[in-house]
Amino acid sequence: MIKKQVTIKTNCKIEMTDITASINDFVKENNIISGHITVFVPHTTAGITINENCDPDVQYDLNAAIQTIFTNINIKHFEGNSQAHLLSSLIGVSQDIFIDDNKLLLGRWQGVYFWEFDGPRTRQFNIFYEG
Amino acid sequence: MIKKQVTIKTNCKIEMTDITASINDFVKENNIISGHITVFVPHTTAGITINENCDPDVQYDLNAAIQTIFTNINIKHFEGNSQAHLLSSLIGVSQDIFIDDNKLLLGRWQGVYFWEFDGPRTRQFNIFYEG
Amino acid sequence: MIKKQVTIKTNCKIEMTDITASINDFVKENNIISGHITVFVPHTTAGITINENCDPDVQYDLNAAIQTIFTNINIKHFEGNSQAHLLSSLIGVSQDIFIDDNKLLLGRWQGVYFWEFDGPRTRQFNIFYEG
Repeated sequence: MIKKQVTIKTNCKIEMTDITASINDFVKENNIISGHITVFVPHTTAGITINENCDPDVQYDLNAAIQTIFTNINIKHFEGNSQAHLLSSLIGVSQDIFIDDNKLLLGRWQGVYFWEFDGPRTRQFNIFYEG
Repeated sequence: MIKKQVTIKTNCKIEMTDITASINDFVKENNIISGHITVFVPHTTAGITINENCDPDVQYDLNAAIQTIFTNINIKHFEGNSQAHLLSSLIGVSQDIFIDDNKLLLGRWQGVYFWEFDGPRTRQFNIFYEG
Repeated sequence: MIKKQVTIKTNCKIEMTDITASINDFVKENNIISGHITVFVPHTTAGITINENCDPDVQYDLNAAIQTIFTNINIKHFEGNSQAHLLSSLIGVSQDIFIDDNKLLLGRWQGVYFWEFDGPRTRQFNIFYEG
């Protein structure tokens, strides 16, 4: 199994970071011709998603929506960030991405995003390839 | 890696299409005895889920609920379909399904669904098997 | 493929059960050194998630939040549990967990949870390893 840990810095409480280039680099570096990799977030207040890579206004709308719909859910948790924990479970902490001809098999408008729900923080994500 | 792209036509804005038979066909055609396949949607306004395959009223209730809970979230995106993008991230664009004895290892009431959030459209989903 | 079915008993309508120890047992029993396992729930009113394993107040807040945000969505389904079906699709019925050096590659605060949305019931989850 090949694994790589990538560190990123997030700048806002809720923020999407496009990590498609980083995944593409991993595929090139390891000369993965065909198969799939998995991106996994080892945190409980962030997630991984695949979504629109063209109009950044989509990210603006999504970040605003999740801030509104899932707000004020903290009752007992002393850190006050239960909203971020819920969003991590709703979005999920891992995603498989398939590869063929040494290229990511993503749709025309799909990019891979690290989704911060409790930033700003220094964060990691892991990329796994099992060959 | 074996891959197949299937095209479907959706008829409503929000609609679940049962694709279990199509996945079953793929497993039979390729004589997959054991392992798993992955269904992946190359779109950013649709998703894949596993849910109740018996009472169609479940689908009615789920479609109505997501239409209500996640409505009116569009602020900036020019296409006006940010709700569909959010639902795609919440439901997810891929799902693994395990196989044994050449049969899908689904629970008694589970079916696999393509979930349209911005139809009607002509759509694709990909099925991957890595052997 | 190695597979194991584990039975658990849930005690509340909405409840998270930590199944990390059970997954760890599977990894030890089968001496899995490296790779990944998949946990899959064969039910349509429960899910699998990875979240905070330390402060149980996080679970309290998450259970309260999903009960509130997704309540009263039942319109047609005769069993009256459409909320549980929606939550199953939002959280998802499977999760991959990676392993290296015979240990689960989870983050410092991550545990694996069976999430009941329509209990109390006797439930199963399946663990798959493809070698």
